[in-house]
Amino acid sequence: MINQEFASQLLEDAVTELSRLPGIGRKTALRLALHILRADENRGVRLGQSIIDMRRGVRYCNSCHNISETDICPICANPSRDNRTICVVETVKDVMSFENTGQFNGLYHVLGGVIAPMDGIGPDSLEIASLVDRVATGDIDEVILALSATMEGETTNFYIYRKLAPFNDVKITQLARGVSVGNEIEYTDEITLGRSLLNRTLFVDSIKR
Amino acid sequence: MINQEFASQLLEDAVTELSRLPGIGRKTALRLALHILRADENRGVRLGQSIIDMRRGVRYCNSCHNISETDICPICANPSRDNRTICVVETVKDVMSFENTGQFNGLYHVLGGVIAPMDGIGPDSLEIASLVDRVATGDIDEVILALSATMEGETTNFYIYRKLAPFNDVKITQLARGVSVGNEIEYTDEITLGRSLLNRTLFVDSIKR
Repeated sequence: MINQEFASQLLEDAVTELSRLPGIGRKTALRLALHILRADENRGVRLGQSIIDMRRGVRYCNSCHNISETDICPICANPSRDNRTICVVETVKDVMSFENTGQFNGLYHVLGGVIAPMDGIGPDSLEIASLVDRVATGDIDEVILALSATMEGETTNFYIYRKLAPFNDVKITQLARGVSVGNEIEYTDEITLGRSLLNRTLFVDSIKR
Repeated sequence: MINQEFASQLLEDAVTELSRLPGIGRKTALRLALHILRADENRGVRLGQSIIDMRRGVRYCNSCHNISETDICPICANPSRDNRTICVVETVKDVMSFENTGQFNGLYHVLGGVIAPMDGIGPDSLEIASLVDRVATGDIDEVILALSATMEGETTNFYIYRKLAPFNDVKITQLARGVSVGNEIEYTDEITLGRSLLNRTLFVDSIKR
């Protein structure tokens, strides 16, 4: 508990702001602040300025809603990417994860979450209408639903599937469900095991990769 | 692992700076940065500005070396405090801890650590000479050694004790060693138990508190 008057209002202010970050309590915030005070002045100023610059400078791509510093993000603007395939993800972080796989050369669409009525998140809170608009242009061949394999993710998948059903020539796919690489069968749940059996693939294909 | 090009250099810069903080890896830094991006713009700017203001504005008290926004910190400048008693502590955080006890009305002296030859911290890296100077003024009645009960803390206690020995009329005390409040005897080490026996206090005194 730190309830005494801090020796410095400036320190107290910084601790208060730092402790608003997720997973950072007042004790940790104080530890961080004192670290910043001990370290080189330039480094502390650079940290603060980088946060301000990021918050002021980063916007969202008008097309895919990924973070961007320009109206259209570098991925959407990249002419060497397949602009007829859209991978629908929940968050900006998911875009980074899929980019890190090096397995995808299409474009993204960041929903901003999944439908979760319990948390007050309905379809209108998400970027679903703008996804439908992108598909409605007729320039899209495939929409990959890459949402979490949770109840909310599946619900959102189904909602989007119904919204896109009218576009007959658009293929709607979803991520494969199966045993996670590195996981033991013993600890894999039965639903996943069942799906992995149903969707089994040719062994020879896995060797070729 | 986040080794791909970030969608935004500004984001990458902020993540890099955040990940320099202790206990914050690149993954956590990214989580914090994305949180800042999702939150209100003013809040993010306020966080960054508070860090800059703190780093630029906070100095150290010329007398006790606690953090301060002025040459002399509020504790040293407070005329209602007992300026003839100095409590010697390791860090700025320790000052806060002792202030939170509400049991001390004297002044402090922040050493900046303890003597630790293994870490390259000798007496000259610490504010020991300035402590001797304060005592040499003749205005001090008691110096309380409030360092950690570790090997390094005890070494530092002894070093300071020897430095202050020439000042015959200054009482040098140290924190009581004993069973921590709330701890069970079963899990208390023998050295502490031995010290707590030797330094036992009148039970009636503990009732009066």
